[in-house]
Amino acid sequence: MHIDIITCLPKLIESPFNDSILKRAQQKGLVTVDIIDLRSYATDKHKSVDDYAYGGGAGMVLMIEPVDRCISDLKSKRHYDDIIYMSPDGELLTQKVSNELSLKENLILLCGHYKGVDERVREHLITREISIGDYVLSGGELAAAVVADSVIRLLPGVLNDETSALSDSFQDGLVAPPVYSRPATYKGWNVPDVLLSGHEAKINSWKQEQAIERTRKRRPGLLE
Amino acid sequence: MHIDIITCLPKLIESPFNDSILKRAQQKGLVTVDIIDLRSYATDKHKSVDDYAYGGGAGMVLMIEPVDRCISDLKSKRHYDDIIYMSPDGELLTQKVSNELSLKENLILLCGHYKGVDERVREHLITREISIGDYVLSGGELAAAVVADSVIRLLPGVLNDETSALSDSFQDGLVAPPVYSRPATYKGWNVPDVLLSGHEAKINSWKQEQAIERTRKRRPGLLE
Repeated sequence: MHIDIITCLPKLIESPFNDSILKRAQQKGLVTVDIIDLRSYATDKHKSVDDYAYGGGAGMVLMIEPVDRCISDLKSKRHYDDIIYMSPDGELLTQKVSNELSLKENLILLCGHYKGVDERVREHLITREISIGDYVLSGGELAAAVVADSVIRLLPGVLNDETSALSDSFQDGLVAPPVYSRPATYKGWNVPDVLLSGHEAKINSWKQEQAIERTRKRRPGLLE
Repeated sequence: MHIDIITCLPKLIESPFNDSILKRAQQKGLVTVDIIDLRSYATDKHKSVDDYAYGGGAGMVLMIEPVDRCISDLKSKRHYDDIIYMSPDGELLTQKVSNELSLKENLILLCGHYKGVDERVREHLITREISIGDYVLSGGELAAAVVADSVIRLLPGVLNDETSALSDSFQDGLVAPPVYSRPATYKGWNVPDVLLSGHEAKINSWKQEQAIERTRKRRPGLLE
């Protein structure tokens, strides 16, 4: 898989891709991620990529021309399955969407910043819009990192133990059951006896009950 | 406002806080953010903070003892309004939650990693759980950065123009209307005439109509 992230603030999301699971996934050759500086596609000597909004109002808008030049350049080198604009009013990211994206070959994630991107980019240059939730961020950069992280960790071989992602919340339509680690007693707070029993069948049925109970309380929509 | 982010991978979220709006907010003295390395509260010489889960299953679990030591140490220095665990099955982050958090004085954001944190931490040591959406990430670090970004940008003085955040999506119960910038015509794609008219009342009513129309299409739940 290859992911291009287009941003006017490339340094902002350097560190998430240079550490831990996302770093190892790249080192293993399972994914390549390029963070593309939109400013290198600016057309003036000041490297401007944003300008005031027509009709007034607070905040700057990313201009269509540098975005078009950037996307065209990338498309001349690769075929993209999706060109995704990160937008608070886009399709809501869910585990199902992440699963689906993890099967793609090449993706572009376009990050807005300031007030967003010229609407004509959304109408003509992208194929899809994704939101990570109903809240506003300074820009699409963290949202793009969230999408990339949720997708990359699903690629076969990225997690050390391939069953690890399958036992995550949402993968079986339930949130995950509680987990406990050592010590078995801490300040009088105990790990449930069943988990210490060594009785695999009982443990699995306890986990299943807990997952259902927790889903009922916290995400009843998943059970409908 | 002060935010402590507890993580076993402090480098992972360095860059989002050292660039752009989050950096400027700290430079202006409007917020302080400390990224706390959970490993410095480990009790063994290997600086272990995670261990296998009782009852088996894939993935490591953050142990209660280092987390307890860390939170206790922080609490000895400050009173916290909320100690928040970032969890996929927590309360869903919305703009309303971000608005509410932006009025707090001191917050802890505790990041799980691997399979999450010992359940006893969730039962006894935290005050709240927040999820940025129904999907699973490698850890809570990006989620904590998302919460911090959505909250910090709301603090008075962080954005250059204070009206900027108020005209964002969700703040008036609507998603934002389309925005356009120069040039007015690009490859035959035109900016709507009304935005070039200079007629403020017409422009504002067009924006309002567009916001309602877009909300109806994309987030009908906001209109209920």
